[in-house]
Formats: sequence, structure tokens, C-alpha cells
Amino acid sequence: MKAEIIAVGTELLLGQIVDTNSQWIAERLAELGVDLYYKTTVGDNENRLESVLRQSIERSDLVITTGGLGPTQDDITRQVVADALDLELIKNQEALKEIRSYFQEMDREMTDNNVQQAFLPQGSQIVINNNGTAPGFLVDTGETIVISVPGVPLEMKSMIIDFLIPYLKDNKLEDQVIQSRVIKTCGIGESSLETKIDDILREQTNPTIAPLAGQGGVKIRLTAKADSLEEAQAMIATKEEELKERIGEYIYGYDDDRLEDVIADLLWEKDLTIATAESCTGGLIGDRLTSVAGSSAYFERGVISYSNQAKKDLLDVKESTLEEYGAVSAKTAQEMALGIKRLADVDIGLATTGIAGPGGGTEEKPVGLVYLALAYGDQVIVKENKFNGNRRRVKYLTSQTLLNLLRKTIL
Amino acid sequence: MKAEIIAVGTELLLGQIVDTNSQWIAERLAELGVDLYYKTTVGDNENRLESVLRQSIERSDLVITTGGLGPTQDDITRQVVADALDLELIKNQEALKEIRSYFQEMDREMTDNNVQQAFLPQGSQIVINNNGTAPGFLVDTGETIVISVPGVPLEMKSMIIDFLIPYLKDNKLEDQVIQSRVIKTCGIGESSLETKIDDILREQTNPTIAPLAGQGGVKIRLTAKADSLEEAQAMIATKEEELKERIGEYIYGYDDDRLEDVIADLLWEKDLTIATAESCTGGLIGDRLTSVAGSSAYFERGVISYSNQAKKDLLDVKESTLEEYGAVSAKTAQEMALGIKRLADVDIGLATTGIAGPGGGTEEKPVGLVYLALAYGDQVIVKENKFNGNRRRVKYLTSQTLLNLLRKTIL
Repeated sequence: MKAEIIAVGTELLLGQIVDTNSQWIAERLAELGVDLYYKTTVGDNENRLESVLRQSIERSDLVITTGGLGPTQDDITRQVVADALDLELIKNQEALKEIRSYFQEMDREMTDNNVQQAFLPQGSQIVINNNGTAPGFLVDTGETIVISVPGVPLEMKSMIIDFLIPYLKDNKLEDQVIQSRVIKTCGIGESSLETKIDDILREQTNPTIAPLAGQGGVKIRLTAKADSLEEAQAMIATKEEELKERIGEYIYGYDDDRLEDVIADLLWEKDLTIATAESCTGGLIGDRLTSVAGSSAYFERGVISYSNQAKKDLLDVKESTLEEYGAVSAKTAQEMALGIKRLADVDIGLATTGIAGPGGGTEEKPVGLVYLALAYGDQVIVKENKFNGNRRRVKYLTSQTLLNLLRKTIL
Repeated sequence: MKAEIIAVGTELLLGQIVDTNSQWIAERLAELGVDLYYKTTVGDNENRLESVLRQSIERSDLVITTGGLGPTQDDITRQVVADALDLELIKNQEALKEIRSYFQEMDREMTDNNVQQAFLPQGSQIVINNNGTAPGFLVDTGETIVISVPGVPLEMKSMIIDFLIPYLKDNKLEDQVIQSRVIKTCGIGESSLETKIDDILREQTNPTIAPLAGQGGVKIRLTAKADSLEEAQAMIATKEEELKERIGEYIYGYDDDRLEDVIADLLWEKDLTIATAESCTGGLIGDRLTSVAGSSAYFERGVISYSNQAKKDLLDVKESTLEEYGAVSAKTAQEMALGIKRLADVDIGLATTGIAGPGGGTEEKPVGLVYLALAYGDQVIVKENKFNGNRRRVKYLTSQTLLNLLRKTIL
């Protein structure tokens, strides 16, 4: 079954609201195993809406429209759906009764405009609206199903759940389910990752495998179609194992996991405490580590040592180190990590120092040059990195890289 | 000028992500006075994308595609745009140079897949990507402009702002100008604000006035249409003065100003230095203050004193205060602000202590209870607040409220 969604409303084209309806319906369709091929947004314009509708009816098995069912003049969906299906718009007695009873229940006056809402394409099935005045309707031509629901999310959702989904299950669908899982990676670029799993990507059919670059790393989405949930989950698990063999070291979590959540679990599990000494990240790592509920159990303190004086006062960085190597240096990062670990009396000390830009760079130490350090047990790991992008991005990539190093170290 | 947007990506049709790109672009086009007639979402499928593109090129003057420019196999936009325009895809030397230099700067290995990203439709203008590897491109056939940008919001936005908008202004747009200005407020709710400017809102025509509630406060967008830029700006300035008389005390900035930018300007101007002592905000205030370029001139240091020990060690909070009043108390906040101001030897000390939740609340000290303190000159201001929402929101509102208090204090 091929489906498409048409969102009707000039306000959507002015960017005044985000169309979350389409995304919600798309998720429901995916769960049903219905393939959604197009989502279109069109304004309150009869000609454009009709041409979009005619094309959709031609190429798809299921067309869902949202919006344009209200009582005002710019609510054109009823009329235009009738036109596009070459049907008359006629007064639907059942719809009129529903609208009347809604107004009676609400103890409100019904206007002539509301009577207009009872005019539906000939042969429609009314879709009852328990949350508002505008009834929806469904026309099944045998070749195509067109269903029109209001744009108000609450009204739209209950019509999809209470009417459309049961209708499709009873009449049209085979018993297929779609299941997805997102694998989250860090520390490898999209193209290097693809090179490592090139053959797996080429051979993909079911589950499908889609890499997607994001700010903090590349995500891979696995989507399986099967006759049962168990079967779909098993197909995903098998493919996941295959991927893990190739890129396991870069995987930090799944679905909604954030890197800081994964680290929180590791610190809990291993009963470790941590403290941070941040220069270029300016508190971002502290903010991320403390964004997890219960983080006071492992996060002891942080120091944002923006000045050299603060590095000396609060982290015992040596005057001679700052003079000889500079504040942005491997040696300073190392002393910062060791200093915070000792002074806070914790198991792990993290440190960052670098040039976040856009100013402050030199030929020798350009913008984006960052030193990371991690002191744990008897070891101190120091890494030099060179990040690209604006100040915000350099700070973020620094935090992400150091947190990923932390994850790998304590794993 | 008639425009449309095509968002490319199967993940959008699976409902896995909300397409906020299209809404953002729609807003920018509305500001330019460009009519957006259609937004279409289509998956990573060559046939369907090509048919959508051919139709768009036929009916619109400007076609903007987002997504599908990455280095992987399912990134098909370059090829399909070339096909739909009946152009060859050829290796663009400028694009190749850009990609190479990106990898050189990042000190990362460039793969063959990345070379694919330099193949653009013949006659394209390259749209440089300062935030990633995928260059965008623009083809102007004389009848239609097609511009393709990546789906990563940061990359997409900078290409639209830095390339497309100037291109349209220079080449295509007629003399009617649309000018917008956003007034940013903090410390007043949407309905209280609307009550204060109720009559102005009722009488609005040109400029239009649209209040919009956001995370950090209510924004008001003024949009004027006029024959010249000067005229539009004058119309906005007049209306702005009217609004300022009513709600001036809540206004902290304009357009893209962040509260931290406004504070940075004030600190610079008055030659003041600052340091932070954060408990419940966990580094967020430091992160915000240091997100401004050049912040090392006024931000001396920060302390994230998550434990009582850290409050004593690094801020000289008295043991007796912690015992008698507790870590979350007005007295502790006051000592933290005074402590950091004295120890860092700065003009201003900021402090936060509170219960960010979701756990850790008691009847006497519930989740969301936060104490803020600001030490400046001889004064210490301490405020008790009760914020609603999840952990992230409590942290954010704490930072926003304290930064706004700082702004008003040093103004």
C-alpha cells in the first residue's frame, strides 16, 4: 500500500507553525507497514490543492489530508476533495446530526457556517470528531482511499487512531509490522564508516540500513519489515551483530541515548567519581555531565579555568609550564587533569584547553586546536585535536570527543 | 517569485525526525516577500525525486532542496537534480578544492566517497559549506533557480543566509522590501505581555506584530512592507518606540541577540570582570558566558561546586552555613557569590544553588526551588525562585533568570 499525506494551510507555508501532524501520521503509517512516498504542504488555494490532490489520487492507494475542514471561507478541503474525485458535495444528514449534537452538548449556538461543515463528497463515510465541530470523511473508490481530517492535532490524532487504523486493518492491510532501531556512533566520519560497512550497505534489503550524519556523530538506522514484532526484532538483532563486528568500537548507544547518559551508567556501575577542569569548553562538559538526573552521585566538582591565574590557583598548573608551553598545550592539559583529580580527590579528572575562536589563533596554534586530557588511576591520556567550525561547534566537538574518550577508557 | 521546498530523506517519511528545516526556510522566504506555494517531502528514491523535481522546475521560479548531499550511496540529490535539469554531473574543481581543504584543516583522511561530493551539475555555482564536507550548489537556468543544500540544519542555515538570500536580493527580487525585526524580552509571560500591548496588537496592519513564546522569553516580530528599505525601517522604528514605552524594561535585545551577547557588550563597555559559582546549573552559565567570542577578556573563572566539599574548598562557604541552612539556601547562595568574587578577584560574582530534579526534592525544598545570588560592589542580591519543568528546563530558566538579573543590575 502506497500512501501520501497532504497538509493544507497557508500558515504552514509562511513558516508560522511546524507541521508536526505529518510526522506523527508518518510514524503511525510506518508502524502499520504502509509505505509513505510523499508528504506535500499546500496553501488554502483551490487550484493548487486540486492539482496536488488529482496527482495523489492517481499515484497512491491512500491519501490523507489534514486541515481546511473548519467553518470559514478559507476552509476549502471538502469542496476540493469532491472536485478532485469528480463527486458532488452533498449535505450529509449523519454529519449534520453529529455537528448539532456537538453544539448541544457544548451548550453553544450553531451558526450557518457550521452547517457547511456537514456538506461532504457524495458516498463519503463520516469520520466522527469527538473533540471539535468539523467531521472528517473517507471516500473509498476501490482504487484509492481519500481521508480528510482536521489540522488540530488532538482531533486529527483521535480520527486516525479510532477510525483510519481500524479501517485499514479490517479492509486493506496484510499483517506486517515495521520495527526500527538507531545505532549511535562517535569518533568516525560518515564516509569512513560507510567504507567499513560498504558491502553490508550494498546488500541491504530488509532490514534497510541508513547512515545519517549528525552533530555529535553518525547514526545508523535499521528498519525491518516482518510478519510479527518478534521476527522484526530478531532481524534487526542479527544485522546489528554484523555491524558491531565492523564498527563496534565506535558505537556508544541506541535510540534516544545521549553520550552523557551512557557515561552516567558506566560511572554508576563502576562506582567512579569524576571532576572537570575546563578551559575552552567553558563549562559545557560540566553542563552535559550534570544534565543526567542523579549526577551528584559521581560528579564532585568542576573548575572553569579561563585565566592563567585560575589554572594556577585551582588546578596547581605550574607557572613554568604556562611560560614554557603556553596555556594551550599538551603539558598544561595534562597538569590540569592531574590537578583536578588530586584536588577534588576523585577517580577521574578531565581537562580541556584550546582555541575556540574565531579570534586568538596564531600560525603555530590555530583556531580549533584543542588539547584534551584524562587522568584515571596511574595513567594520563593527552590528545591533540584540530576541530573545524564556529566557536559553538569547536566547544561541542571538544566535549563530545573527550566524553567519548572517557567512555572508551572506563569501559 | 514563486518558490517551493523539497525535503529529501526517507527518514522524514518514516516519521523519525520532524522537518524543521522547511519551516525555517519558509520563514526566511516570507521575510523576503517570496511566495512559497508547495513543500514536498520525498524519500531517497531516484524516480520519485526526479518526478517531483521536474514538476517543481516546471511550475516554480525557485526550488530549494534540502538533504541527500552526503557522501553515501543513498545521497542521490546531486545526480537527480542534474537529471531533472537535463545536465551532466561533472567534477567541479572548486568544490573538490573546498572539500580537500576541509579535510586538511580537520587533519582527517579524505575518502573516495568524499570525492563524489565534488560532482555537481554542469554550470553550477558552488555554495561553500563552512560547517561540513558537503558543498551545496545553485543552478540558474534563467527561468528557474534550483539550489541544493544539506539537510544538517547548521549547514543548511548558513548557506541560505550567506549565499541564497544575498543572491536573490542581488538578482531577482523586486523593489518592494519586507523588513523584519524581532524584539526579545525576558521576565514576563506571553499573556501578561499581550495584555500590556492589547490595543497595539488589535490595531496592527503594517507593520504586523506577532508575539511568540519561546524557551528563554517572549519574542515579538515586527514586519513592515514598503517601497524602500529606509521606509520599512522607519515604520518599524516608530512601532518599536510605541512598544518600548509599555514593555521597555523587559526588552533585552533584538533579532539574533542572545542574552549572553548583550551581557558581553555591557561588561566590555563598563570594563567589568566576572566569575561564576554554579551548583544546580552545573556549568551552563559558564558555557553561555564563554560562548561569546572574546569572553576571556571578562570571564575570569568558574567553579562548579556540586559537592559541599567543593563549596568549602573553592568558595569558602562556611561549614556552619551548610549545616544550619543546607546547601540549597539563600545564605549558601550569598556566600557562594561573595566567595567567588573575592577569590577570583573580579567585579561580579554569580551563584546558583537549587534542586534541578527530578529527584532530591522534599516538602520544604521541592524540585525547582533555586536560589540565585549576585555580588557586585558592596551589594549582594539574593533571589528565591521556583521553576517548573524537567531538569534541563530548570537549569535553563535558572541561567536565564540570573543572566537577566545581571543585565538589569549593571545596566
